[in-house]
Amino acid sequence: MKHTISVLVENRFGVLARVAGLFSGRGYNIDSLCVGETVDPSISRMTIVTHGDDRVIEQIEKQLNRLIDVIRVNDLTQEDHVERELVLIKVKAENEKRRDVMEIANIFRAKVVDVNPKTLTLEITGDEEKINAIIELLKPYNIKELVRTGKIAITRGE
Amino acid sequence: MKHTISVLVENRFGVLARVAGLFSGRGYNIDSLCVGETVDPSISRMTIVTHGDDRVIEQIEKQLNRLIDVIRVNDLTQEDHVERELVLIKVKAENEKRRDVMEIANIFRAKVVDVNPKTLTLEITGDEEKINAIIELLKPYNIKELVRTGKIAITRGE
Repeated sequence: MKHTISVLVENRFGVLARVAGLFSGRGYNIDSLCVGETVDPSISRMTIVTHGDDRVIEQIEKQLNRLIDVIRVNDLTQEDHVERELVLIKVKAENEKRRDVMEIANIFRAKVVDVNPKTLTLEITGDEEKINAIIELLKPYNIKELVRTGKIAITRGE
Repeated sequence: MKHTISVLVENRFGVLARVAGLFSGRGYNIDSLCVGETVDPSISRMTIVTHGDDRVIEQIEKQLNRLIDVIRVNDLTQEDHVERELVLIKVKAENEKRRDVMEIANIFRAKVVDVNPKTLTLEITGDEEKINAIIELLKPYNIKELVRTGKIAITRGE
């Protein structure tokens, strides 16, 4: 099963290598990972998406909690939460193809962040389903470059 | 100096731990890191923001290039590129404060992704300057939770 794990850590060097090492040490791949500062720059938040056996992931979460720089581990999978991802897509869009690509961009409320005679670069945010849908629609036009942040998540409610 | 480094890697387990280890092994902190799949799910792209001595960062980039799962390393700092980040912010917004928070949200074209009697959760994308500006404006209202993806970047032009 897919798990979205939110980990609050002290912003010290080496913490990312230790967290990533916990997963790889058990042969677990990280599907996506984001890490950035919180309001307090001495504290960072990682959002990790992984999949696999629930029991093993539970063990990894327990071991994460034992790491010295880890403040809190939340598995958001069971909680009511909002998930979002940001993607930048550079797609070939010459001549009459540009209008087609713009039409897809408008349907998904994507923003154009760069344009030149041969390509368009779009910025899209949304949940996994929306992101995957626009990627599938743009594939036939030839995607030259695709950069995704990976998922971040926040609990609903207070 | 700040560097934004884009690293294309084989999507194998352990690669993130090795990349992160290269930085921490030299005492270098990673300010933010995103990793997600590309169009080809067997290949992922990492966007790493770090700062420090240019010569040391150049050495780290050379060592990254030597890692077996690393396909390509681009330091985007010197290239013309677009940078974007996604942030979710849960801010206290009771009664008459809600209108104030909504006004700030509208100025920054932030989207409301969750609302309840006590808080509003906003989604904002932009460059570092814009993100920092809205965070500063929302701080006095009491930010309950802040999750940021960290920066991703894409070159301009074809």
